[in-house]
Amino acid sequence: MGRKLQFTDVTLRDAHQSLFATRMKTKDMIDIAPVIDKAGFWSVEMWGGATFDACLRFLREDPWERLKILRKLMPNSKLQMLLRGQNLVGYRHYPDDVVKAFVRKAAENGIDVFRVFDALNDLRNVEVAVETAKECGKIVEGAISYTVSPVHTEDLYIELALQYKEMGVDIITIKDMASLLSPERAYSLVKALKEEVGLPVHIHTHCTSGMAEMAQLKAVEAGADIMDVAISPLASDTSHPCAETMAFVFKGFGYDVPLDKDALSKMAKHFKEVRKHYKKYDMDFKGVDAGVLEHQIPGGMMSNLVNQLKEQGALDKLDEVLKEIPRVREDLGYPPLVTPTSQIVGTQAVLNVLSGERYKMITQETKNYVKGLYGKPPAPIKEEIIKKILGEEQPITCRPADLLEPELEQRRKEIGDLARSEEDVLSYCIFPQVAKEFFEWREKVEKGEIPAISEEDLADTMEEENLCPQPL
Amino acid sequence: MGRKLQFTDVTLRDAHQSLFATRMKTKDMIDIAPVIDKAGFWSVEMWGGATFDACLRFLREDPWERLKILRKLMPNSKLQMLLRGQNLVGYRHYPDDVVKAFVRKAAENGIDVFRVFDALNDLRNVEVAVETAKECGKIVEGAISYTVSPVHTEDLYIELALQYKEMGVDIITIKDMASLLSPERAYSLVKALKEEVGLPVHIHTHCTSGMAEMAQLKAVEAGADIMDVAISPLASDTSHPCAETMAFVFKGFGYDVPLDKDALSKMAKHFKEVRKHYKKYDMDFKGVDAGVLEHQIPGGMMSNLVNQLKEQGALDKLDEVLKEIPRVREDLGYPPLVTPTSQIVGTQAVLNVLSGERYKMITQETKNYVKGLYGKPPAPIKEEIIKKILGEEQPITCRPADLLEPELEQRRKEIGDLARSEEDVLSYCIFPQVAKEFFEWREKVEKGEIPAISEEDLADTMEEENLCPQPL
Ligand SMILES: [Co+2]
Ligand SMILES: [Co+2]
Repeated sequence: MGRKLQFTDVTLRDAHQSLFATRMKTKDMIDIAPVIDKAGFWSVEMWGGATFDACLRFLREDPWERLKILRKLMPNSKLQMLLRGQNLVGYRHYPDDVVKAFVRKAAENGIDVFRVFDALNDLRNVEVAVETAKECGKIVEGAISYTVSPVHTEDLYIELALQYKEMGVDIITIKDMASLLSPERAYSLVKALKEEVGLPVHIHTHCTSGMAEMAQLKAVEAGADIMDVAISPLASDTSHPCAETMAFVFKGFGYDVPLDKDALSKMAKHFKEVRKHYKKYDMDFKGVDAGVLEHQIPGGMMSNLVNQLKEQGALDKLDEVLKEIPRVREDLGYPPLVTPTSQIVGTQAVLNVLSGERYKMITQETKNYVKGLYGKPPAPIKEEIIKKILGEEQPITCRPADLLEPELEQRRKEIGDLARSEEDVLSYCIFPQVAKEFFEWREKVEKGEIPAISEEDLADTMEEENLCPQPL
Repeated sequence: MGRKLQFTDVTLRDAHQSLFATRMKTKDMIDIAPVIDKAGFWSVEMWGGATFDACLRFLREDPWERLKILRKLMPNSKLQMLLRGQNLVGYRHYPDDVVKAFVRKAAENGIDVFRVFDALNDLRNVEVAVETAKECGKIVEGAISYTVSPVHTEDLYIELALQYKEMGVDIITIKDMASLLSPERAYSLVKALKEEVGLPVHIHTHCTSGMAEMAQLKAVEAGADIMDVAISPLASDTSHPCAETMAFVFKGFGYDVPLDKDALSKMAKHFKEVRKHYKKYDMDFKGVDAGVLEHQIPGGMMSNLVNQLKEQGALDKLDEVLKEIPRVREDLGYPPLVTPTSQIVGTQAVLNVLSGERYKMITQETKNYVKGLYGKPPAPIKEEIIKKILGEEQPITCRPADLLEPELEQRRKEIGDLARSEEDVLSYCIFPQVAKEFFEWREKVEKGEIPAISEEDLADTMEEENLCPQPL
């Protein structure tokens, strides 16, 4: 038998994040968790990314509770989370004390594999998280945010991977969130990583552009060790290559594929039903998004642009904006177009076109970006742009989080008794407003002041049972 | 630059046949046809398969008119059709006089490439069509219906391809209608075909199982010359690999890809809007259908089974039926599970389970199949099954169409003045009832007795304009 391949199931995290707005509830994971636990995956990604926020904000669930529940139900599995470096599971940089405490609590509650990344690949933004996870004795994946630009050469990626290796990560992940990784680049990049870095390589792709399966196939041919997959009813489209399909394909080529067919089949049956519960959040993605191949603008960014222009009554300027985007991206040092840089670049391009003069109007986010508050861009920002935007102000050169005061103790005091655990305090550090509302809701439920069921659940139940309020 | 690859665009035929019940109207093709004409495709598949039936039955369109219109709008393109061998564009065998006349008229009206196949790969069922198309000086693709079974070895496929070559076809097509072609088989089969047959190889796949792009990639690595693609908004799912994606990928690998990016981009824009017109027919396919990998049962067949069992109140027997299907298929000589054999095998398996005794109840279709009226199965039907089903009757051994009397003159008389052309007579030969109703409708419209707009169009318009009948 051939070389052994490993698979990470991302059904419980990235699949529903990509397909139906991260809305999957813990109750839809519980029955199937013991089956996933024995399906033969190398790891199960089930936490982090947008799930933390979605739990608190939309589902009225405690994300830490989900972790504890799944930990108990999956004793044989390595549980994996996606960690946005210094952003943790939020959208801004948090101070080091919060980062350290969060990683420790995540490890303590059962995370075995930390996949850490930074949108700009500024590895200063991941180092505290990586160090802390390693101190906890956990497996760390150093993830490279993949993009395409004149400065994103193979050498750059190798350099990043070597820095990650230096930091002590166990695995290098190619994180292709925007579905830009071509099969040809996948092959050459993985080959170079295996030869020049020597760590195991894990591939994370999305199917949006139609290249993901081919990219994974060529990555494996070049020596990739682990790949991310989702179970069939939640695979493809903006999600990930299908678990059953990739298992079948690589078995066909003679690889050793440790996945259990019956378990996958049970998972498929389960999640086919589960997906129906979230119909109203479903992306309704049709066909292939070929736009990303042409101009690297992911579908979500494109619809944001269209909406922005519509609001201004300037939809006829769309072509101009699409031409402006690569110029802004070049000006700003070729950031990958993902959250938050896709919004920064997109909005700035719209302003540049609508105001009639480039960088006449500037958003606070663009200013912060140019100041260096998001980290160091892949290439230097153009001198004249820095001058135009910052004037006399100087960009920072230190690690952005070096400018942040510790927050943990202050937050602990603020939230007081509403927090019942260190985990609650951390939720509050990351999403103060949202977590506080959740805690207050929880208290009211326990006091019997409001029903135990969340508004969300209530709305669903009403829909399901057709309990629409009757006009009297 | 590397080897030149060629592409067939199937957006106007198989893509909408696979995605929204073959409902695309000619009017949605007209504006974009001149763009497709200059996009650089080797050929444009735009006729045949189910489109002929759908035009007459649902769209109130004359399929021959569509052919003439597109011929005029695409003077630079090779127009391609899918021809079901002796079944032409229908669902039963037609006598040779009809087959010859149909192929000649199709050629005369502008078809340049005839892709001919038989569901059982009984090449006696394609020979008249192939000969006639060659006599007309047209390009003929001999298509092999791909399936997986113990008797469907590489040797069998090579043997079929050699028979096709003997018949004088120009190209061998691997027709993977059921999405069963694994990348590994694609590679080895194409390699063998190129080495042992030597004709150009054309790949036709569907994305249902998630393998199609990988299969095309490996097929090309093994030497395949032409591949079928659909434009992005109508690609993927139960349709085909995406034109833009495959062009991008193979360009990346250094192949010579003759497709024009701007033209593809215009097509994508056009068909993105067009797809919305057919929302009510859209399959609403989600994720990947991994079932075909496990038991080769395509999604459509599976839902038929479920419906049949539901009607009988026997849905709990589904697992038994799923186990019975491969046994029936084996009994019947391993037919590929496509129309009509998927229905024959499926219904017989249901009867075998529900009646409590195998082959106690038998459909007329099963009997006809065993009698040899569909052609020769890939492997011999089991002796005891033949005896059980036919009793003393003997199966035929001749070509099924040898038993059919000529029909053309009789049909011509029958339809009389309602037919205004030889093309009309052929439509009537193929779908007597449906064509006659269409002709009658056409007359009434011309006499002003009913509005020119079809009921179908009328319904659509009402929906679009929200002209619902108001309750008085
Ligand atoms: Co992702
Ligand atoms: Co097809």
